[in-house]
Amino acid sequence: MTFFNMINIPIVLASQSPRRADILRQAGLQFRAISSPSDERFVAGMPPFQIAEYLANNKMQKSLHLKQNNEILLCADTIVVYEDTIYNKPKDEDDAIRMLSTLSDNTHTVYTGVSIAYKDHLVSFTEATQVTFCKLSEKVIRSYMNKFNLMDKAGAYGIQEGIGLYAVQRIVGCYFNVMGLPIHKVLHVIENL
Amino acid sequence: MTFFNMINIPIVLASQSPRRADILRQAGLQFRAISSPSDERFVAGMPPFQIAEYLANNKMQKSLHLKQNNEILLCADTIVVYEDTIYNKPKDEDDAIRMLSTLSDNTHTVYTGVSIAYKDHLVSFTEATQVTFCKLSEKVIRSYMNKFNLMDKAGAYGIQEGIGLYAVQRIVGCYFNVMGLPIHKVLHVIENL
Repeated sequence: MTFFNMINIPIVLASQSPRRADILRQAGLQFRAISSPSDERFVAGMPPFQIAEYLANNKMQKSLHLKQNNEILLCADTIVVYEDTIYNKPKDEDDAIRMLSTLSDNTHTVYTGVSIAYKDHLVSFTEATQVTFCKLSEKVIRSYMNKFNLMDKAGAYGIQEGIGLYAVQRIVGCYFNVMGLPIHKVLHVIENL
Repeated sequence: MTFFNMINIPIVLASQSPRRADILRQAGLQFRAISSPSDERFVAGMPPFQIAEYLANNKMQKSLHLKQNNEILLCADTIVVYEDTIYNKPKDEDDAIRMLSTLSDNTHTVYTGVSIAYKDHLVSFTEATQVTFCKLSEKVIRSYMNKFNLMDKAGAYGIQEGIGLYAVQRIVGCYFNVMGLPIHKVLHVIENL
């Protein structure tokens, strides 16, 4: 489609994440958000770099009936991977401290899987960003935990606030991918539908 | 100082940039913003990577009398450099189109120079981030220009909105440095004062 069509076409975002909604807003796109069925089981033994896209495609299958014919449906799933271990949302504060202590002074990878449907097109892809953390003491982690909610975020941090601003020394790749939606790639996939 | 002191100490931000204020807010810091004297002349022949820090130190010299003894004064200046040419705020729409067309399909460097004063400490540094743009057509540039203000930004783009989300394929380094304040390094410098 043309660039002009792209920025005017209605998008259905199958995600309740306020961060994904913010990114679409910053891009100047028209969208409505719907809640997506969250089924985060995955096939045992699946390589970590395939899981986010697998989960995004699962959401797509379960949400496809909720879009109108002229709308684009956009599904995404983000996971944090360090040394072949997947870090989801922490279970409790101790779990958050364990996660952040492991990521401390190391480089991990954030994968977002995206699935996009429009008319007879269905496209999915994975975007990876490397994130390097500085050394984090337990005292610093606890201080941030008192001021910011770390419980609703994969890997127990948001790159855009609080401990993310303190911890992230450097990234290689797309920043918005770490926030949950690789917007550059999303726009270019839509433009080429 | 201790981490606890750092997040409670009052900061004076010598910048009217709403983006720098947003970053300090996202970091959970206490601050007040003052307007800083903008004197963007620099010494002819100065290497581009030294200019941002030179300008930040200039702002510091002119603003130092505006802070109280218990406050930290924070000055910053951001420039965009591609092939030894410095891209400041565009003069007009044609200038913005020329800048973005030059940055299109290439990698440029964003330098932010920072100067920090607290009691008898004065620290300055430069942070560099590499930014890679995809190919931008004049039609796409004009479409974004109609929806977003590109005139108040060095290099005629903001990485956090509009054409920045479309153009930026990948960065290497600190994202917030491109927005105007390398917050990771700023926090660690303050923590070590």
